[in-house]
Amino acid sequence: MRIGVLTSGGDCPGLNAVIRSVVHRAVVDHGDEVIGFRDGWKGLLECDYLKLDLDAVGGILARGGTILGSSRVQPSHLRDGVERAKGHLQELGLDAIIPIGGEGTLKAARLMSDSGLPVVGVPKTIDNDIAVTDVTFGFDTAVGGATDALDRLKTTAESHQRVLVVEVMGRHTGWIALHSGMAAGAHAIVVPERPFDIEELTRRGGERVEAGKRVALVGAAEGAKPAPGSMDFDEGGKDIYGHERFAGIARQLSLELEQRLGKEARPVILGHVQRGGTPTAYDRVLATRFGWHAVEAVHRGDFGMMTALRGTDIVMVSLAEAVETLKTVPAERYAEAECVL
Amino acid sequence: MRIGVLTSGGDCPGLNAVIRSVVHRAVVDHGDEVIGFRDGWKGLLECDYLKLDLDAVGGILARGGTILGSSRVQPSHLRDGVERAKGHLQELGLDAIIPIGGEGTLKAARLMSDSGLPVVGVPKTIDNDIAVTDVTFGFDTAVGGATDALDRLKTTAESHQRVLVVEVMGRHTGWIALHSGMAAGAHAIVVPERPFDIEELTRRGGERVEAGKRVALVGAAEGAKPAPGSMDFDEGGKDIYGHERFAGIARQLSLELEQRLGKEARPVILGHVQRGGTPTAYDRVLATRFGWHAVEAVHRGDFGMMTALRGTDIVMVSLAEAVETLKTVPAERYAEAECVL
Amino acid sequence: MRIGVLTSGGDCPGLNAVIRSVVHRAVVDHGDEVIGFRDGWKGLLECDYLKLDLDAVGGILARGGTILGSSRVQPSHLRDGVERAKGHLQELGLDAIIPIGGEGTLKAARLMSDSGLPVVGVPKTIDNDIAVTDVTFGFDTAVGGATDALDRLKTTAESHQRVLVVEVMGRHTGWIALHSGMAAGAHAIVVPERPFDIEELTRRGGERVEAGKRVALVGAAEGAKPAPGSMDFDEGGKDIYGHERFAGIARQLSLELEQRLGKEARPVILGHVQRGGTPTAYDRVLATRFGWHAVEAVHRGDFGMMTALRGTDIVMVSLAEAVETLKTVPAERYAEAECVL
Amino acid sequence: MRIGVLTSGGDCPGLNAVIRSVVHRAVVDHGDEVIGFRDGWKGLLECDYLKLDLDAVGGILARGGTILGSSRVQPSHLRDGVERAKGHLQELGLDAIIPIGGEGTLKAARLMSDSGLPVVGVPKTIDNDIAVTDVTFGFDTAVGGATDALDRLKTTAESHQRVLVVEVMGRHTGWIALHSGMAAGAHAIVVPERPFDIEELTRRGGERVEAGKRVALVGAAEGAKPAPGSMDFDEGGKDIYGHERFAGIARQLSLELEQRLGKEARPVILGHVQRGGTPTAYDRVLATRFGWHAVEAVHRGDFGMMTALRGTDIVMVSLAEAVETLKTVPAERYAEAECVL
Repeated sequence: MRIGVLTSGGDCPGLNAVIRSVVHRAVVDHGDEVIGFRDGWKGLLECDYLKLDLDAVGGILARGGTILGSSRVQPSHLRDGVERAKGHLQELGLDAIIPIGGEGTLKAARLMSDSGLPVVGVPKTIDNDIAVTDVTFGFDTAVGGATDALDRLKTTAESHQRVLVVEVMGRHTGWIALHSGMAAGAHAIVVPERPFDIEELTRRGGERVEAGKRVALVGAAEGAKPAPGSMDFDEGGKDIYGHERFAGIARQLSLELEQRLGKEARPVILGHVQRGGTPTAYDRVLATRFGWHAVEAVHRGDFGMMTALRGTDIVMVSLAEAVETLKTVPAERYAEAECVL
Repeated sequence: MRIGVLTSGGDCPGLNAVIRSVVHRAVVDHGDEVIGFRDGWKGLLECDYLKLDLDAVGGILARGGTILGSSRVQPSHLRDGVERAKGHLQELGLDAIIPIGGEGTLKAARLMSDSGLPVVGVPKTIDNDIAVTDVTFGFDTAVGGATDALDRLKTTAESHQRVLVVEVMGRHTGWIALHSGMAAGAHAIVVPERPFDIEELTRRGGERVEAGKRVALVGAAEGAKPAPGSMDFDEGGKDIYGHERFAGIARQLSLELEQRLGKEARPVILGHVQRGGTPTAYDRVLATRFGWHAVEAVHRGDFGMMTALRGTDIVMVSLAEAVETLKTVPAERYAEAECVL
Repeated sequence: MRIGVLTSGGDCPGLNAVIRSVVHRAVVDHGDEVIGFRDGWKGLLECDYLKLDLDAVGGILARGGTILGSSRVQPSHLRDGVERAKGHLQELGLDAIIPIGGEGTLKAARLMSDSGLPVVGVPKTIDNDIAVTDVTFGFDTAVGGATDALDRLKTTAESHQRVLVVEVMGRHTGWIALHSGMAAGAHAIVVPERPFDIEELTRRGGERVEAGKRVALVGAAEGAKPAPGSMDFDEGGKDIYGHERFAGIARQLSLELEQRLGKEARPVILGHVQRGGTPTAYDRVLATRFGWHAVEAVHRGDFGMMTALRGTDIVMVSLAEAVETLKTVPAERYAEAECVL
Repeated sequence: MRIGVLTSGGDCPGLNAVIRSVVHRAVVDHGDEVIGFRDGWKGLLECDYLKLDLDAVGGILARGGTILGSSRVQPSHLRDGVERAKGHLQELGLDAIIPIGGEGTLKAARLMSDSGLPVVGVPKTIDNDIAVTDVTFGFDTAVGGATDALDRLKTTAESHQRVLVVEVMGRHTGWIALHSGMAAGAHAIVVPERPFDIEELTRRGGERVEAGKRVALVGAAEGAKPAPGSMDFDEGGKDIYGHERFAGIARQLSLELEQRLGKEARPVILGHVQRGGTPTAYDRVLATRFGWHAVEAVHRGDFGMMTALRGTDIVMVSLAEAVETLKTVPAERYAEAECVL
């Protein structure tokens, strides 16, 4: 068989582990040929690819990023995107394509599959917001990095009697904030799923001050917002160059808390650091298993499907189901976290 | 309510996170009192305990070890152990006891429960060998530490054209070897569940040598053994002081491979390092959730039960069921790993 | 003897190691009594202190922050600050005081010493800008953290063909940028000591783009500035609440490079993360040695002096000399770095 | 100019950083050609080499090991070794050779230099035992790894009331034991420079037990030995396969302490893990500077010399001087450490 692989969308630790695993399983065990398209769908649309053999994937298991490169290009960006992709698949004699990517990529994968292409998806998002899988690789690494940063900030805040508001990734869901906040013992966590009440945050912070505690650490998902009307809030947006404007939740919330509590408060924005670096062992194992099972699905002809983790098993779920809903933080999980803050 | 907590058996990263979580949930949310017995069942048997309030658990979330201490004492070690424990529970006016421990502790917990004591267990083992839960806290930290060591050893072995056999924990099951070996890209993994064929290992190593590869890294669970008759093997045992004798799988296997391959081979034994240190974010979150749900079970009167992870949910399973079988590495999981070695 | 200790100014990994070492050397070896003032000079001015014995410093060696707390209060902030400090020293029967702090603290220490107080200083700054010592503790930890972040960012930038401008600490000197940039293989480093030429940076970035390189990583000290006239630059400053306004070097430089290169460029600001966390082994050893030698200086009556590292030796230098000049990055060191970028 | 580089002897984090720096400085700034010999002197003796350009050293800065490979072969192992090396240098038109290695390598370098070859050495040893330089790269990484292991072991020992004897590298000098022991707060440190008194160690341990301390952590250099006559001691040695026999300081000392103290004691041998892995930022900077200055020395014709760190400067010292004495732990340094144990 001939199989094509591509990585699309935002960077995510574990991508290389999937690529390596696909190549090992397909080439060594099945005698397949594998090629990798450069820079995501762009490579497929422009027929830009390289051969992937064992040597090509040597030493990449623990490396962050993706040796294939990535971009945010989608087939639907071109009027004839799907047709073009089809043409190239045929031209290259590919029996299947394995796109590794997040929500946008999986939607594109579904589109391609619906139009008859042999597609097996592998979900990827550090945000952990894909509903049909217990977890996606990259999430554990991102949470680990954010927790490490929160651990460090806690000690420095303690020495200075400070409020710190730390912004972690999560535009639409608060999973990274929830897990890193629980893991590091943040004193408050704000997530997009649950607009926060600034009065309550202030009260909680005030109690810490009164109790003589020297630090208050707030973990804030990028997309967290105040309950409507509870405080002035600039939702931000892009400037004329397409850059995010500089407001953001951490800056606005720290300013507000400083004024309300009369305590020095500082914002910290972790940013891209969360996406990079060596994947954790957890993510490397999960990514490796996803790659392995994607190849198996190809050989079984399980197209239009995607790998997913359920408990300790890797299962296949339909791409259609996969992109239906976003997995948000449920009330129970938030309650668990809130208690130990 | 009054609740007693204890930690028993081998050390495991995340114990403090469970203790802290039990105290937060019980004291803050339910207005309970919590006491901690010192050094496991020993503290219960000798009525040696301390009060656990929020201050007592301040700053322990990310700390390895257990602030309560641990020991390998079990109630069954005393003829009147269970009676004595009962007496102390009554004396102290305890409504429930939460033992946190591994197989031995959970068996003791079941025994106590069967004799009428209000027990809710929390499973703990870095070996990940408890069948009724997807995973136990401590395992992720142990795998992370072992993977980090394997990563380091790989680079040094590469510079020197060497075979390294690295012994990781796992007397009865090979989970740590399997996951760390997959994560670090070991070239062979040997586990207790599947006696290895020394001829096959030699052949595999020989292929690497012929292919000009500079390193062969073998991940070996402590309890791994050769297939009967395939090579001389000293199963070890205790010397007269109760110490393990010095043989062990890594030393014997590296010696054997050195002679068979004619390449320098070295053993590395990771040992206790795997049990210590700051728990990973994954383990802190899981441990925190276990503690939270154990308190809920106490308040619901769900005795004779134990917390467990199933998918993303914390559920309660009966202690009787919990200690029935050991969770061993199944053939499919080994096959996944073998392919990408 | 009775000795007082205090930590003043910005947080710095290793402060606790100094405190612990002072207590061990003074209490155990010399039979001294040691007290610690809370929150820096503030504690001395307000006579707010605690007794420091071996138990008080148990387990703090590897902990970031300072158990004594810190503040930016200086004796000179009060009209009668020095007199008040003198009074409290006498009242408490102190034979010496050991202030641990940065430039401001050392200047205050000198002032106190000049007015007759028995002072032995310990220099502290993550910026490494004190001229009379080869290095100060905290710097190695800060560089390590910044390097780790740069390592991570490099992989993620590579996947996306991006320019990243990473802002590290260093308002007046570029030591952290220089060392972390060299260690991580940044492609350009900008420091306050050497206003950068935006044309040259652009040319250098353009060469990478043309050579098909996927990433350009710029390490920028907070205080780095363009050569006058070479580009528009907002020097920032405080807003009406005393907060830094949001401009900063990373944001402005990334915007400028994006426009000039026609490549996506992003700013990352590492911020307080660099100050926190467990000190590196290097910093713990240096801090421990500083504490030990400060006590020896007290016992020798070497007042008005400060500990310093010269080669592998700890020596004493006069506080007067210590605060004379800032240690800036010399041209040779910058040249070394530039070559390997 | 044409320059040859080689790495010889035991593995050491930072070797790749030196190689990369030599190539950058020589190729980019001086327009030189650089070749690398494979597996140390072996490559020179067998004329086995590869061309080193910027691409060849891309991405290696943070990687452990050496891309050139290493071996323990020395020119003096062959009767005509030096002549052969000379011949190959001439054949290849090399103007200089830069051997990077430890004591043995530097002695060989001196021999070659004395016989007229243009040699500039770069010292390398994780043991830090070369007298003419303040420190060598690799040492900081080894100390960091050992400290991290000691930190982890401390928490697990605390939970179990145990004595742990941790064996770190250092056959002839105790630098790694000294620094990691100080950094981690070991309770005793034994080094080759100062035969230990088992009675004193027992007394010190006994005091901890009496004081109710739960853990005693001993940092032991491989080469540490008891004072003659103070306890039975097997100095070990090689078995018939050239392997170290299994005794060692950690096993013997833990057994002895267990019997004398009546407390469980366990040995941990860190082994090769200390040599591998990503070099610390400190080591990357030092290694990079060494490489840079070695190229400068070549261009100045400073042959028979070696790079060294003195304070914050890189200086050149003669190879003759470099190999004269071993840098051992002086009494003052041991005294500093002893106090804070």
